[in-house]
Amino acid sequence: MFKIEEQTMSISLKVQGAIERSSWIRRMFEEGAALIAEYGAENVYDFTLGNPSVEPPAAFQQELRRMAEKPDLGMHRYMNNAGYEETRTSVARHLEQTSGVPVNAKHIVMTCGAGGALNVTLKTILNPGEEVIILTPYFVEYKFYADNHGGTTKEVWTDPETFQPDLAAIEAAITRNTRAIIINSPNNPTGAVYSAEILTDLGRMLERKQRELDSTIFTISDEPYARLAFDGNSVPPVFKYIRNAILVTSHSKDLALPGERIGYLAANPSMDDVELFMDGAVFCNRVLGFVNAPALMQRLVAKLQNESVDVTEYQEKRDILYNHLTGLGFDLVKPGGGFYFFPKSPVDDDVEFVREAQRHNILLVPGSGFGAPGYFRIAYCVEMGIIERSLPAWERLAKDIGLA
Amino acid sequence: MFKIEEQTMSISLKVQGAIERSSWIRRMFEEGAALIAEYGAENVYDFTLGNPSVEPPAAFQQELRRMAEKPDLGMHRYMNNAGYEETRTSVARHLEQTSGVPVNAKHIVMTCGAGGALNVTLKTILNPGEEVIILTPYFVEYKFYADNHGGTTKEVWTDPETFQPDLAAIEAAITRNTRAIIINSPNNPTGAVYSAEILTDLGRMLERKQRELDSTIFTISDEPYARLAFDGNSVPPVFKYIRNAILVTSHSKDLALPGERIGYLAANPSMDDVELFMDGAVFCNRVLGFVNAPALMQRLVAKLQNESVDVTEYQEKRDILYNHLTGLGFDLVKPGGGFYFFPKSPVDDDVEFVREAQRHNILLVPGSGFGAPGYFRIAYCVEMGIIERSLPAWERLAKDIGLA
Repeated sequence: MFKIEEQTMSISLKVQGAIERSSWIRRMFEEGAALIAEYGAENVYDFTLGNPSVEPPAAFQQELRRMAEKPDLGMHRYMNNAGYEETRTSVARHLEQTSGVPVNAKHIVMTCGAGGALNVTLKTILNPGEEVIILTPYFVEYKFYADNHGGTTKEVWTDPETFQPDLAAIEAAITRNTRAIIINSPNNPTGAVYSAEILTDLGRMLERKQRELDSTIFTISDEPYARLAFDGNSVPPVFKYIRNAILVTSHSKDLALPGERIGYLAANPSMDDVELFMDGAVFCNRVLGFVNAPALMQRLVAKLQNESVDVTEYQEKRDILYNHLTGLGFDLVKPGGGFYFFPKSPVDDDVEFVREAQRHNILLVPGSGFGAPGYFRIAYCVEMGIIERSLPAWERLAKDIGLA
Repeated sequence: MFKIEEQTMSISLKVQGAIERSSWIRRMFEEGAALIAEYGAENVYDFTLGNPSVEPPAAFQQELRRMAEKPDLGMHRYMNNAGYEETRTSVARHLEQTSGVPVNAKHIVMTCGAGGALNVTLKTILNPGEEVIILTPYFVEYKFYADNHGGTTKEVWTDPETFQPDLAAIEAAITRNTRAIIINSPNNPTGAVYSAEILTDLGRMLERKQRELDSTIFTISDEPYARLAFDGNSVPPVFKYIRNAILVTSHSKDLALPGERIGYLAANPSMDDVELFMDGAVFCNRVLGFVNAPALMQRLVAKLQNESVDVTEYQEKRDILYNHLTGLGFDLVKPGGGFYFFPKSPVDDDVEFVREAQRHNILLVPGSGFGAPGYFRIAYCVEMGIIERSLPAWERLAKDIGLA
């Protein structure tokens, strides 16, 4: 399954290998698509994609109508590679208000989503062969992103009881070759929200290690789910706790605009060589071919920094599914935000479990796709009707595999 | 000027070096901005940027209003990494109509502009150290784009009398290590439109070399100016002439949407291993962090494949400036399309000439920025008023440097 069957001379061998290795995921998606074609979308419970079913907030729709009706001259032209001053100021003000840290427009680069922001950041900082620590279970794209820019990744498991970072394990993994650590809270795939205590301790440990090694170790905080925290909590602002922090995020989840590719990166003003980093990020945004974040979306999100989709909807979905699944005997950590569960697979082989679930029209992603075999991911950013109709299917699945 | 003055340990040494090497261009732009602040934008003749002053066609504005007034459910969500089927079908139909080659939706990936398409293409095909031939004078980003993906560039001069490709020189530059050649017609910075004869001969020569070397050599045809051809001509369709061709383009110029980052790549259906290439391109669009081309713009351009900004405006600007400059004794090739001139610098040092022009409030880019010292670039995609008001300044400049 992981062997390259035939090498051609026409495309990159690395890319060809990656495609062949991921062909099993594609096959699984194709089987899911075939189920939907056979039974109808309303009878297949597709929990595979982090593609929000909600619509953007009303304020977004209003602002878009206003701009379409009275277009400004030149509103679709190139602007500075960093983005519009107005948008960067608005983002900076939001970050300053939520963190208390004096962030300024010059610390912001608007990007093509968080995926763009991560690639720009990694290209800006990585020398060949330098290491990026990622926390397992991890978003698989991190490995590709680091590799794009000549870096390597070192995987460090989170605490499997809570999915919070394991600071001792992280400290043990740091070497002179460590350039960055990527954290992601609320987390994809676990839904864990990192506590202020953990971030405080992580920040202190990193300061100590940087002094010890006389190096800069960046914390790249990937936060597209930051406005999706439950139970009245909010996500602790990373700039308050970690000095060499770069925040990367998008409006894919909080404004439900994933297809529009609008996000940003922000540097902590107190970071080492912050101006040099920002110059590098603007340059990399240009030369990676992003050039700038989409103009119209920049103009829109400038007005919407205090808007968000309704978080109570996601919380309600979490509660219904969490109660149902724990009631059926599934073993899972209750998420504090985002829209994912990452339960233990009730059978050893998570790929086998996911195939079993497929027989009940429940579509899931195996934990192997996140570096964590023995688990599976549920993306519950789907319509409530799907969640409700899926409940009896979960019961039948639990019975079939001998749970409870 | 090209020495790294101080190396830090905090960002990539390669990126730091590139920023320092390009600092002179930045200084020049800053001086230009200072002139604009001092004299007012209407009294400074800024010919530095390929940022069209025209607005998108009326059909674009209408379609945007329609979508804003009656938003479709889910219209801002993720779609397939390759883009909407509807958009890809529309693009394919346009390519089929203009080239006579049976292009299909499966040969198209929608991208974040031509910059995105070029990066996706180069990552898909390049193995470490492989060479990409670029034609001097060249768009400087090509060198960064190839380097992003582990490739190197080999520069081959065009015929300096016509700026058409020099086939003998290209053939002599091809080795077993050559993976691709990038062509760009209408050309930035010269405005040259490559003739059907040249493309025919290039296609034949490449077939012969590929047989000889038993390899695939891709022709990456970068065509954002393809709908901007003058004198009633049209740009010969590359798929008709070159088999292993990948077309990369955007709607930055033809629909005047450069800030929106909407473009595509298309593979010639008769290309070697075309399905493997397309799989690779979809994968690279994902893992480079583009994920997909902006959703709203995809929906818009699906309806606008036969639209274009008014080309006669550009042609009129070309004629006024061309006649004026040749009348003053400047030595330049008459462009067949696009919106650039690339005249010979009347003094040996093009950077010195550009500084001299600045003293007359004329802002230009030195040929050194395109691998061609001894020339300079004029981007005439500016308002007619600026062109008209610049004419006396050009006269004074010509007199000062002793032309005519």
